[in-house]
Amino acid sequence: MQALWLENQQLSLRDIPLPPESREALIQVRLSGICGTDLELVRGYYPYTGVPGHEFVGEVVASPAAEWMGARVVGEINATCGRCEQCRAGRPTHCEKRSVLGIVQRDGVHAEFFRLPLANLHHLPEGLPDELAVFTEPLAAALEIQEQVQIHPTDRVLLIGAGRLGQLIAQTLSLTGCELRVVARHAHQKALLESRKIRPISEEEIQAKRWDVVVEATGSGSGFDLARSALRPRGTLVLKSTYQGEMAVNWSPFVVDEVTIQGSRCGPFAPALRLLESGEVDPSALIARRFRLSEGLKAFSEAAQPGMLKVLLQP
Amino acid sequence: MQALWLENQQLSLRDIPLPPESREALIQVRLSGICGTDLELVRGYYPYTGVPGHEFVGEVVASPAAEWMGARVVGEINATCGRCEQCRAGRPTHCEKRSVLGIVQRDGVHAEFFRLPLANLHHLPEGLPDELAVFTEPLAAALEIQEQVQIHPTDRVLLIGAGRLGQLIAQTLSLTGCELRVVARHAHQKALLESRKIRPISEEEIQAKRWDVVVEATGSGSGFDLARSALRPRGTLVLKSTYQGEMAVNWSPFVVDEVTIQGSRCGPFAPALRLLESGEVDPSALIARRFRLSEGLKAFSEAAQPGMLKVLLQP
Repeated sequence: MQALWLENQQLSLRDIPLPPESREALIQVRLSGICGTDLELVRGYYPYTGVPGHEFVGEVVASPAAEWMGARVVGEINATCGRCEQCRAGRPTHCEKRSVLGIVQRDGVHAEFFRLPLANLHHLPEGLPDELAVFTEPLAAALEIQEQVQIHPTDRVLLIGAGRLGQLIAQTLSLTGCELRVVARHAHQKALLESRKIRPISEEEIQAKRWDVVVEATGSGSGFDLARSALRPRGTLVLKSTYQGEMAVNWSPFVVDEVTIQGSRCGPFAPALRLLESGEVDPSALIARRFRLSEGLKAFSEAAQPGMLKVLLQP
Repeated sequence: MQALWLENQQLSLRDIPLPPESREALIQVRLSGICGTDLELVRGYYPYTGVPGHEFVGEVVASPAAEWMGARVVGEINATCGRCEQCRAGRPTHCEKRSVLGIVQRDGVHAEFFRLPLANLHHLPEGLPDELAVFTEPLAAALEIQEQVQIHPTDRVLLIGAGRLGQLIAQTLSLTGCELRVVARHAHQKALLESRKIRPISEEEIQAKRWDVVVEATGSGSGFDLARSALRPRGTLVLKSTYQGEMAVNWSPFVVDEVTIQGSRCGPFAPALRLLESGEVDPSALIARRFRLSEGLKAFSEAAQPGMLKVLLQP
C-alpha cells in the first residue's frame, strides 16, 4: 500500500506491506489531517520511525467483531494496556505501555490502511461529512482544557496562538460565554476569528496580571513569557503545546502569585463529536489545502509554512 | 526601642524610634520567630531595608478601637488597600499595593514594638501559650495547600523538605489521612517526624511517577527535580518555597503528563488557630533555641545553620 514513511527525520512516499494480521480493526483511510505534532516529528523533536499521522476518518474493512465491519469511524490515538496503574486508575491516555498512533511505536494514518484496537473507535454520525469529522481528534484536545479547568462564564480568558489547534480552542472557549481575546500572528488567522465574532488582541493591548485564565498554544518561549505576565494572581496558565528543549524560568513569581499551571494533552472524543454534529463548532474554514496521499511530501512542506492552517490528505 | 535592622544585607541591633503615630494598632512584641524568608532577606534574595520578621505574638498597647486594647494577638502579614482589583475580587493577600510585615515596605516584628492594621489582627484563645501561637503564621501557610488542592484521604503524598515549614506541612497533611511520606535531610528532622508517626522516605525508595501529590518545600533545584520525577501523570506539584534565580526546565513532560503545578504562599489564620488550640497540630518540638532580642544577631546566625528548626526571639 502507499504510505508516507518517516525515518531519520526523512519523510518519503513508499509502497509498504499492509499492516500485519492482528486482533485490531483494519481501517481504510478516507481522509487524514496533518497536525503540528507530525511536523515536529519530521523536525526530529521526538524520535519516531514509521508512518506518521493520527488525525483521520476511515472505514473499518476488517474486524474481529462483525458489527464494526463497514463502519465509518474516527479513533482515539492512545492504544492502552488496560492493566497498568494508570489504566486501572482511569487514566488510559497516560497508560504506561501505550503506543500512540503515528507518534509512539504505532504506524499512523498518512497511508491507505492502518490498524487500531476496536476500543479506540467511535462511530460517526451519518450526516457528519469527512471534512468535519477529521477534526475530531484536535477538537477533543481543545476540549481537554474544559475537562481540566473550570472556565467560568465571567472569566477573562486570553488565548495565545491562533493556528490549527488555537482556532479550535478559540471556538470551544467561546462557547463558555467567557470574555475571550486571542493573540493571532497572521492576518488570515485574525480574519477567521472575527468571522466567528471572536476578538483578536494585539500584544500591546494585553494588560499584565489581569487574565483569569491564559491558554498558551504556541509552544514558543515568547508565548510562554507573554502568558506568564498576563496571568493574574491565583490565575490558571494552561500549557497546550509542548516546548522544544529547556526554558530558563524564574519560578518565584509563580509561588508568590500562587499561580496554577496546567499541562494539557489529549481530550475526550464524545463531546467533540457532539459539537461537530450540532454545528456549535465548525472547523470547515480551517481547511487550507487538500492533497492526494501521493502528493504527501508536498502537502507536508505546505503544512510547514508559517501560519498555515489544516492540510488534508486523501489516499 | 531595640530592634534588629536590615540594610544592604547587613543585619544590626539598633536603637530606633518607636513606630510613628498612625491609625494602626501599636503592638508590643511578646515573642517572634525567625523564618526562612527572614534569612533569605539577609542573604539579599529580595531587596529590603528595615526591621525584619513577620511571625509574632504580641499585645496591643495602642489602638484606634478601644476593644483591642490589651488584647494578645497574632496578625496576618499582608497589609492591603481594600480597593484594588485583587482586594475587590476577594484575594487580599495578593493586593497590588500591599505592604508585607518585615518583607515589603513595612517594618517587622524583631523589635520591641511595631504597627499593623486592626483588620490584620486575630485574638488568641486564652489557653494557647505564646510558644505555640507564634507558629500561627507558618501553620497558616502550610494550610494554604489544602485551601488550594483537594487532598484525598486515599492520595499518596510526597513531601520534600522537613525543615521549619516542612514539619508543619507534614503535620497538617498527616491530618488528612493520606499516605504521607517525607524526605528529610537531617536525622533530628526524621526523628521529629517519627515521633508523630509520620514516615520519612529515602530518595532511593521514591518510585518515579507514582505520587498523586508532591509538595516541594526545599526551594532547591534538586528538590524540584525530585518532585517532578516522583509525580504521577495528572498529579499535582505544590511549590511551597520560592526559588533563587532561574531554573532551566524541560516543560514538555509537564504537558505530556498533564501535570498541575500549584504555587502556594500565605494561608488562612483561623483554621491554624483552631488546630493549635485543639492540639491537633503541636509545633512545640520544633523550637530549637530561644534568645533575647538583644542577642538577635547570634539568633540569626544560629537559625541559618543547616537543618536548624525554629529559633525564637523575646524582647
